[in-house]
Amino acid sequence: MDEAVNLAAKLSTFDETWSPRTVAEFNGHDVMVVKVEGEFKWHSHPDTDDFFLVLYGEIDIQLRDQVVSLKAGEMFIVPKGVEHCPFARKEAHLLLIEPTGTPNTGDTATAADRKTI
Amino acid sequence: MDEAVNLAAKLSTFDETWSPRTVAEFNGHDVMVVKVEGEFKWHSHPDTDDFFLVLYGEIDIQLRDQVVSLKAGEMFIVPKGVEHCPFARKEAHLLLIEPTGTPNTGDTATAADRKTI
Repeated sequence: MDEAVNLAAKLSTFDETWSPRTVAEFNGHDVMVVKVEGEFKWHSHPDTDDFFLVLYGEIDIQLRDQVVSLKAGEMFIVPKGVEHCPFARKEAHLLLIEPTGTPNTGDTATAADRKTI
Repeated sequence: MDEAVNLAAKLSTFDETWSPRTVAEFNGHDVMVVKVEGEFKWHSHPDTDDFFLVLYGEIDIQLRDQVVSLKAGEMFIVPKGVEHCPFARKEAHLLLIEPTGTPNTGDTATAADRKTI
């Protein structure tokens, strides 16, 4: 990769929600953009922290004992093993970083769906 | 960490340039914000890719054979071992991610300067 990655331009190339697209690779991690709306599902990642940075809109990251509300320009790391469930009242756009091959949900089938754009 | 990290708020707490502040930890990496202005110095990281996301302003990442220009909302990964020299004509704000303890410049003295805010 030898050019700038414009995150908004990458996000403009697809409409699906909860379907992360890889835009760069970094130290064995996928850097991804994703559109979200509504509620995802409760899950945890036993072996990796989960990186969320809101690029557009607002999301709530529901944890079992609290809710972390994030708006554009705000980030949160869900520590490994901690159950969480993202929720977006309206469409929001996120930057995610996870080790390459990490399933979204703990279900390994979803990792294979990741596309690079 | 159990609250949102507002990147602009973190950046508002200091004025020094080229002095990254750690705002979160992720899978053995420091997630940092930094203010930059002017030219840094040519360096490379033999063991880590170098993650740049522009939050405010514009920077040029000079490589030996090209210049990658980035504005807010754009990112670039400098692959490990690749010499680079960031340059900002005016003040710019960046999100950086590097393995914990990675020196800014290849000079291990600089890693010890990192503060968590």
